[in-house]
Amino acid sequence: MIHFDCDYMAGAHPEVLEAIVRNNTTQTSGYGEDDFCRDAKEKIRQACEAPNAAVHFLVGGTQTNATVLDGLLRTTEGVIAAETAHINVHEAGAIELTGHKVISLPSHDGKLCPDEVDQYLRDFYADDTWTHMVAPGAVYISFPTEFGTLYSKDELTRLSETCRAYDIPLYIDGARLGFGLAASADLTLPDLARLADVFYIGGTKMGALFGEAVVCNNEKLLPHFFTLMKAHGSVLAKGRLLGMQFGAMFTDDLYLRIGRHGVQLAKELRSAFEEKGYKTFIDSPTNQQFFILPNTLIDKLLPEASFEYWGPRGQEESKVRFVTSWETKSEDIAALKALLMD
Amino acid sequence: MIHFDCDYMAGAHPEVLEAIVRNNTTQTSGYGEDDFCRDAKEKIRQACEAPNAAVHFLVGGTQTNATVLDGLLRTTEGVIAAETAHINVHEAGAIELTGHKVISLPSHDGKLCPDEVDQYLRDFYADDTWTHMVAPGAVYISFPTEFGTLYSKDELTRLSETCRAYDIPLYIDGARLGFGLAASADLTLPDLARLADVFYIGGTKMGALFGEAVVCNNEKLLPHFFTLMKAHGSVLAKGRLLGMQFGAMFTDDLYLRIGRHGVQLAKELRSAFEEKGYKTFIDSPTNQQFFILPNTLIDKLLPEASFEYWGPRGQEESKVRFVTSWETKSEDIAALKALLMD
Amino acid sequence: MIHFDCDYMAGAHPEVLEAIVRNNTTQTSGYGEDDFCRDAKEKIRQACEAPNAAVHFLVGGTQTNATVLDGLLRTTEGVIAAETAHINVHEAGAIELTGHKVISLPSHDGKLCPDEVDQYLRDFYADDTWTHMVAPGAVYISFPTEFGTLYSKDELTRLSETCRAYDIPLYIDGARLGFGLAASADLTLPDLARLADVFYIGGTKMGALFGEAVVCNNEKLLPHFFTLMKAHGSVLAKGRLLGMQFGAMFTDDLYLRIGRHGVQLAKELRSAFEEKGYKTFIDSPTNQQFFILPNTLIDKLLPEASFEYWGPRGQEESKVRFVTSWETKSEDIAALKALLMD
Amino acid sequence: MIHFDCDYMAGAHPEVLEAIVRNNTTQTSGYGEDDFCRDAKEKIRQACEAPNAAVHFLVGGTQTNATVLDGLLRTTEGVIAAETAHINVHEAGAIELTGHKVISLPSHDGKLCPDEVDQYLRDFYADDTWTHMVAPGAVYISFPTEFGTLYSKDELTRLSETCRAYDIPLYIDGARLGFGLAASADLTLPDLARLADVFYIGGTKMGALFGEAVVCNNEKLLPHFFTLMKAHGSVLAKGRLLGMQFGAMFTDDLYLRIGRHGVQLAKELRSAFEEKGYKTFIDSPTNQQFFILPNTLIDKLLPEASFEYWGPRGQEESKVRFVTSWETKSEDIAALKALLMD
Repeated sequence: MIHFDCDYMAGAHPEVLEAIVRNNTTQTSGYGEDDFCRDAKEKIRQACEAPNAAVHFLVGGTQTNATVLDGLLRTTEGVIAAETAHINVHEAGAIELTGHKVISLPSHDGKLCPDEVDQYLRDFYADDTWTHMVAPGAVYISFPTEFGTLYSKDELTRLSETCRAYDIPLYIDGARLGFGLAASADLTLPDLARLADVFYIGGTKMGALFGEAVVCNNEKLLPHFFTLMKAHGSVLAKGRLLGMQFGAMFTDDLYLRIGRHGVQLAKELRSAFEEKGYKTFIDSPTNQQFFILPNTLIDKLLPEASFEYWGPRGQEESKVRFVTSWETKSEDIAALKALLMD
Repeated sequence: MIHFDCDYMAGAHPEVLEAIVRNNTTQTSGYGEDDFCRDAKEKIRQACEAPNAAVHFLVGGTQTNATVLDGLLRTTEGVIAAETAHINVHEAGAIELTGHKVISLPSHDGKLCPDEVDQYLRDFYADDTWTHMVAPGAVYISFPTEFGTLYSKDELTRLSETCRAYDIPLYIDGARLGFGLAASADLTLPDLARLADVFYIGGTKMGALFGEAVVCNNEKLLPHFFTLMKAHGSVLAKGRLLGMQFGAMFTDDLYLRIGRHGVQLAKELRSAFEEKGYKTFIDSPTNQQFFILPNTLIDKLLPEASFEYWGPRGQEESKVRFVTSWETKSEDIAALKALLMD
Repeated sequence: MIHFDCDYMAGAHPEVLEAIVRNNTTQTSGYGEDDFCRDAKEKIRQACEAPNAAVHFLVGGTQTNATVLDGLLRTTEGVIAAETAHINVHEAGAIELTGHKVISLPSHDGKLCPDEVDQYLRDFYADDTWTHMVAPGAVYISFPTEFGTLYSKDELTRLSETCRAYDIPLYIDGARLGFGLAASADLTLPDLARLADVFYIGGTKMGALFGEAVVCNNEKLLPHFFTLMKAHGSVLAKGRLLGMQFGAMFTDDLYLRIGRHGVQLAKELRSAFEEKGYKTFIDSPTNQQFFILPNTLIDKLLPEASFEYWGPRGQEESKVRFVTSWETKSEDIAALKALLMD
Repeated sequence: MIHFDCDYMAGAHPEVLEAIVRNNTTQTSGYGEDDFCRDAKEKIRQACEAPNAAVHFLVGGTQTNATVLDGLLRTTEGVIAAETAHINVHEAGAIELTGHKVISLPSHDGKLCPDEVDQYLRDFYADDTWTHMVAPGAVYISFPTEFGTLYSKDELTRLSETCRAYDIPLYIDGARLGFGLAASADLTLPDLARLADVFYIGGTKMGALFGEAVVCNNEKLLPHFFTLMKAHGSVLAKGRLLGMQFGAMFTDDLYLRIGRHGVQLAKELRSAFEEKGYKTFIDSPTNQQFFILPNTLIDKLLPEASFEYWGPRGQEESKVRFVTSWETKSEDIAALKALLMD
């Protein structure tokens, strides 16, 4: 069986796991007050070219989004997000649980349109009744989006300018950031660090056992953040594990190597389908690929390959998602090709 | 340097870590829907002699307490706890963050007095104004407590009976449960599973990298718990890691072996101090030991041994805490003894 | 100046105010435990033909919606509402403040489409990932809607059936209920009481100084509701004031008399505009009327009449809202007509 | 029957009610945007000698405390209060409902001890683990307290200085403020306005139908407060009613006149008991009086006079509370005296 379901089906990249194993018996303080964390934070600041950024390590994406947004938003403020955003759909209301509305705007293959965000903010404050409404206190985007798509440098710059004009932070959910950076035509990690106010570098879907690294350009945006993390249950007692993993991922460019690997294999996978005439229904440059396949083909593939079913398209076709990851191998793509050849 | 600061300063017990390493490249579904989790849950049910219990895996203690109690309590209900309870002091208001009051009663070396709980409940409903007040919707205890002390079987039985008389669940925070079971004169894991309505088997402080296993006797008490966990940010994407670790800890009695090891070394550590005439200020039978030491001795020990300072006692003595764990070695105790001998 | 801005610009209907003045020095218990409240509740149960309904009095609409929905929804559940619903737009995130998502569906002149609600629920539970999502735990509609429109008996019956099929309560915000009942072709108060699980009879916009009466068919839906009200700050110390007002409004059919008065004058107002060839942009049968007027006419009316500006429509016309209430007089309509004649 | 149960058993003081009746048909904007409110706010600023203070009108005490404290506290911050404080006991967890812990300190007849508050704050920040704990973000006191007692000018000054030293606001719950000002030996309204950061002038218990006026010395402490009020359901649609009532209460010194009246009659009431040899169990100078009475006397009084039973004191005596208000008459005291004479 070859697996293309998602990018968190296996454990950790060997270099990441090795860091945990190697340092298993070293004694350190808890809660992230250790040299592994200090070292990993410094490496991340360097990779971001953001020497003054605050870096915080959390365990998972949903808790990271909820904790950071609870920190960024004043009570009664909400966060603007695409209606397909993970925080609006698949996080079980974690943002609302601690009091904040997700203000959803139309999704364009997972992306917010910078002009629509600008228009929303203009209309909001032009409305006489705005003090009766949830004020937009932050903008959330994901990079890549839930559909694998990417903002261009121009789009991200415009979003960033709009946010700064209204003095609200731009927050980027980077659950799959490495795949996005590997595939982006024009955006680098330092660009993100400059254009976003807060973002997180995803570990879980990029080859860590778990872990997300929040990068915050301006400490004043997230005051007393450790206590907020603690209240949200997002402090890991053995915080060192996060330091070890991010230390490994930011050594010898491992984070980007994993990103490039996943993107390269996703391209090959896409070619394999396209060569046989199958079409995508979203044009994703990253490690998630979205195809329209005949139901007969799906039935044929299923005993040999796993992937996600995304719903019917007419009577005879369906939409499916294939995902590559750090541990997808060239042999997996070759095996898939062979299945398509038959 | 020998370390007695706390029980989460190192990584995982070798048998636990080995389970993670061995299965690193196995592919499984995410979010705990995998065979490692299914197997570990079954092992826990067997160890608890609770064949119908629901078992849920979470990452850390604070998030476990907040998620479970949010599930057990109706809006406007609070949880009774000792004023020294972890949820009342050191969890940064995680219980209040999602709307619930901690109703604190006096602490007796960390324990609630069963009679005082009963009296509180009787007085509460005898008060004409009780509908203006936060109703007690659950009772929280820790076993062992934050001061290493243990409830006897009789005490726990009385607490349990009171809770059942008022139809409110008894919840046990078992962050260090293994040390408690190893030290208890008369309580076993099946006893806990029978007397508590919900409790958790702590992993983080018992030799796992992280992880806590919630055992719930009655599924109706925690309906839709997966979604609640998700909303609290306490679902681990690679949930398999929790299954692997608890699977290992409930194989060949590892969990109790670690408990016995920590308790045995704690006894030796205590003897070492007592033989030299030093006294404890709390009489703990578990892996946390609390001594009154001369400040001169503390100054002498500090370059060689780490432990926690708990505040002054008069001008010339101080209170300190020493903790043993899975990775404390007999040599560590011997080294400490040698220091005391000098 | 004649006023058509809204229906809460003046004090109370004379019969309502008189009840407060007449009983001013009578001594009663606080918090609604008085004979005025008991009497008013009984009158409401009779008017609803719901002898077993629980009736609760609150002060205002936003607090009523937030308190009731917090009572109906389990943590992590959300409420389905039209995207234009008051709770989704103009209540400053009160629903989210205590943890619940507003799940917005398309608005059809303020109404939910019963088929779309049914489809949403069907799709929700057909989605494999639904446990990662906010479960729909109630349906919210307003009657009349924020745009003055009404559900027909058939539409309301279908919504009610869908809700019961999924075992989630149907909740009706009746801020302007009296105007809706007066204008409805086929729905009566007993119909609402039968088809809804919980609804509120609005007082503030119907001629009370303030006050809303929640009617709940099934007490189990809102257990410990007084305490929940207290926690939401929605218990009035001198609860008697609510009893006096609702007692007056449900004496001699005052509530419906006010409804009919407002609707009758709204019809006359609409005719006045239509006779001069002006069009509505929403077809409302109740006390809110929505016109498209030339900007020149608006400028001419403004010195003599107040109404709400709802935004431009092209270059030369605008959308406006005129509202009638208990204290709109025939003379006001006549004066408006005269202004249109000039 | 003569009534001494509490101070909210009747309607409004005639001068207050008259203001509502007189202006009933005047048309104004809603939500407090009217001249009645503007005028009343100006009168309050003058009475407080606080020309720059922001004044906000809310409906009831619990909602005022919850809304103001939610505004003053950052997420994860709590409020220090006496363990007997209304917010800690009788507000059904309204503070916790929106995420904040009540940090209770010992009650001294309802009062916080300034030295103990100072010590708590000093100890808090001296504790290495304070970032794991709920930070004290405000201090709450009531004036008069729930037991009728008063802070002296010296005590209030010391509390104020401590709060300013730690840069946390001092908030005063003035539900019965007028009785406190009338009875205080040395504190005036301008003193309170100077020493507190935020306080509220209670209306409900001082002769209004309802209503509380929040006075905030520094607008930055409560940014976007209208929206916060809306989210808490504490905006009254016909806000004018609050303006009319507070306008009347701050005309011709009515507020203080009512205070003096209640305090004077409370003194007479107390004398009546003391002359017969009965003792108080709390020494209250305000309108609540607390006596120890023989059960035989209580049984004799009950058919003729109502008051609150506060629990037994030994076998033959009980604790009771008698309360005077704006509408207690000299005849009521005389009638009570007559009962005691028999």
